[in-house]
Amino acid sequence: MKRIEAKGFAIFAKDGKFQEHVFTRHALGEKDVLIDIHYCGICHSDIHAAYSEWGESIYPMIPGHEIAGVVKEVGSQVHKFKVGDKVGVGCFVNSCRECTACIAHQEQVCENGKAVFTYNCLDYFHNNEPHMGGYSNCIVVDEDYVIKVSSDAPLEKVAPLLCAGITTYSPLKFSKVTEGSKVGVAGFGGLGHMALKYALAMGAEVSVFARNESKKEQALSLGAKHYYSSVKDAKGANLDLIISTIPTPYNLVDYVRCLAYNGELAIVGLPPHDQIPSINASDLVVKQPNKKVYGSLIGGIKETQEMMDFSILHGIYPEIELVEGKDIDQVYYNLTHSHARFRYVIDMKKSLG
Amino acid sequence: MKRIEAKGFAIFAKDGKFQEHVFTRHALGEKDVLIDIHYCGICHSDIHAAYSEWGESIYPMIPGHEIAGVVKEVGSQVHKFKVGDKVGVGCFVNSCRECTACIAHQEQVCENGKAVFTYNCLDYFHNNEPHMGGYSNCIVVDEDYVIKVSSDAPLEKVAPLLCAGITTYSPLKFSKVTEGSKVGVAGFGGLGHMALKYALAMGAEVSVFARNESKKEQALSLGAKHYYSSVKDAKGANLDLIISTIPTPYNLVDYVRCLAYNGELAIVGLPPHDQIPSINASDLVVKQPNKKVYGSLIGGIKETQEMMDFSILHGIYPEIELVEGKDIDQVYYNLTHSHARFRYVIDMKKSLG
Repeated sequence: MKRIEAKGFAIFAKDGKFQEHVFTRHALGEKDVLIDIHYCGICHSDIHAAYSEWGESIYPMIPGHEIAGVVKEVGSQVHKFKVGDKVGVGCFVNSCRECTACIAHQEQVCENGKAVFTYNCLDYFHNNEPHMGGYSNCIVVDEDYVIKVSSDAPLEKVAPLLCAGITTYSPLKFSKVTEGSKVGVAGFGGLGHMALKYALAMGAEVSVFARNESKKEQALSLGAKHYYSSVKDAKGANLDLIISTIPTPYNLVDYVRCLAYNGELAIVGLPPHDQIPSINASDLVVKQPNKKVYGSLIGGIKETQEMMDFSILHGIYPEIELVEGKDIDQVYYNLTHSHARFRYVIDMKKSLG
Repeated sequence: MKRIEAKGFAIFAKDGKFQEHVFTRHALGEKDVLIDIHYCGICHSDIHAAYSEWGESIYPMIPGHEIAGVVKEVGSQVHKFKVGDKVGVGCFVNSCRECTACIAHQEQVCENGKAVFTYNCLDYFHNNEPHMGGYSNCIVVDEDYVIKVSSDAPLEKVAPLLCAGITTYSPLKFSKVTEGSKVGVAGFGGLGHMALKYALAMGAEVSVFARNESKKEQALSLGAKHYYSSVKDAKGANLDLIISTIPTPYNLVDYVRCLAYNGELAIVGLPPHDQIPSINASDLVVKQPNKKVYGSLIGGIKETQEMMDFSILHGIYPEIELVEGKDIDQVYYNLTHSHARFRYVIDMKKSLG
């Protein structure tokens, strides 16, 4: 079997810059789909990984796990896809399929530790070679880890759904948000504005928490009912759910305080590893009893497909700005300096020809 | 109105010993019940407060919030109780009655900060005098904060229900434990063994977590299905709920790891203030997503009455050992040196004549 020629944008060290990079991907297996990548979103996690902010990363690294493209070739045993189909690939591309988590459609927490994340991860199923992400012209993925995208969906806006979409959709479903729920969205960037759109589509009343007034107009125009530029102003908000997408240091208990009795704080964003917020038992027991805190990590394949269908049905897409591969370093700078306007998406066709 | 003569066992400084102490309680108001205290349980919280382990306490202090007795006199507007009724008093004796929490029957977290805890707390409704607890011969309490006890119930075993009972019953109900639920009980002392009994009565399969093998026989004989002397042995236990009653330092994430997808860790016990465990967002998001952590603080009056009725109906009582007022210092020593056998209860009649 012949390995597949590929090219993409790689970073070679945590203090490096992105460069065009030629490499190969594993050969097309019987159940594999070869995808021609049209667009890849830039996620804050890409930055944390590229700069080794969540621990030492594997270099060279081609980040990117918000991948949208078109099927170019399929293996002999592929049944779900055919050449020309629009598809998406998210944060992981394989897992053991046998453990309790995989069977329960939570492949992202595969108990055998065999979830193959799309980048910065060894591929246990292919000689432990480091898997390369979506800042690339193509990718080869087992069909069971590929998401169907209907033919009329705009691929450039579909791309960010594969991480920002599922990451915010999943806790809204997990916490059973429904008509009349009061939902808070903390942090109003790539993830936050998606959380707002989904929560509204589910019938919730939404409050947005940000660090200043700069995003107020956008938040209100997208449908937020309340906007808090300081969490202290939200005392008594009595929210049923707050989704925290905040990627910088903050005080968790400030948000727990804004929850109703039986309310839940879902954490989906994480600051760099030396600035991770924590919460102590005393605050939970004595000051804020009967309020739950949990973390949510993307979502499984089944729920990702559900999210994709829901998004397309309701026309829920991120606000995006198209960039090219040469712009990645600048985009990372913008994202780490709060200059970002929601989601940057790399136009791979324009970038790599 | 005449103040009421009382006596009890007080501690006068955080490094002091208990001494018999004569004092007065506020006069009997129209809606007040004067209770002749027969028994008072000794709770680990009493120790934390008596020794100023949760912050500087108010001295002299008469601890005790697991109070069982008989109505001796009632105010002119008391409608729920009559002289001779068996009754209980728990961790608080008043609150604002107007805030969202009080209206929702969660008086213990009164949002106006007016919950009057039974000891080590100023009584906002009576000239801010420090309220004295149940290591005493009598107490005067508004009828709305007194719990009915049926006439056939054994008062010495009823006493600990007022804290150990409600503290463990409440999270079991809050987390919707039912037939077939898998419940873990971490820490197997006064609270832990009550959690076990309630969980069994609700139809759950129960696992007990302790620090060594010493309580294994008791746990199994009381109906535990599994006993873990190290939390590390419980990997894959997939519990729906763990109630942590642990009053010493420990690692929260070790217990979160034993939860099933959508499982919950309810914290009800707290170590001294400089040893409070905490959990960070990274452990919740990356390693243990979709598992919820919350604190639970006793329970409101309505639920305390429900717990009392449930306990008496099912014959659920603590394992107790009767002691006298002169034994308090020794009991505190035993409780802080893991020599305790479940719940010590002070026989007030024998202690104060």
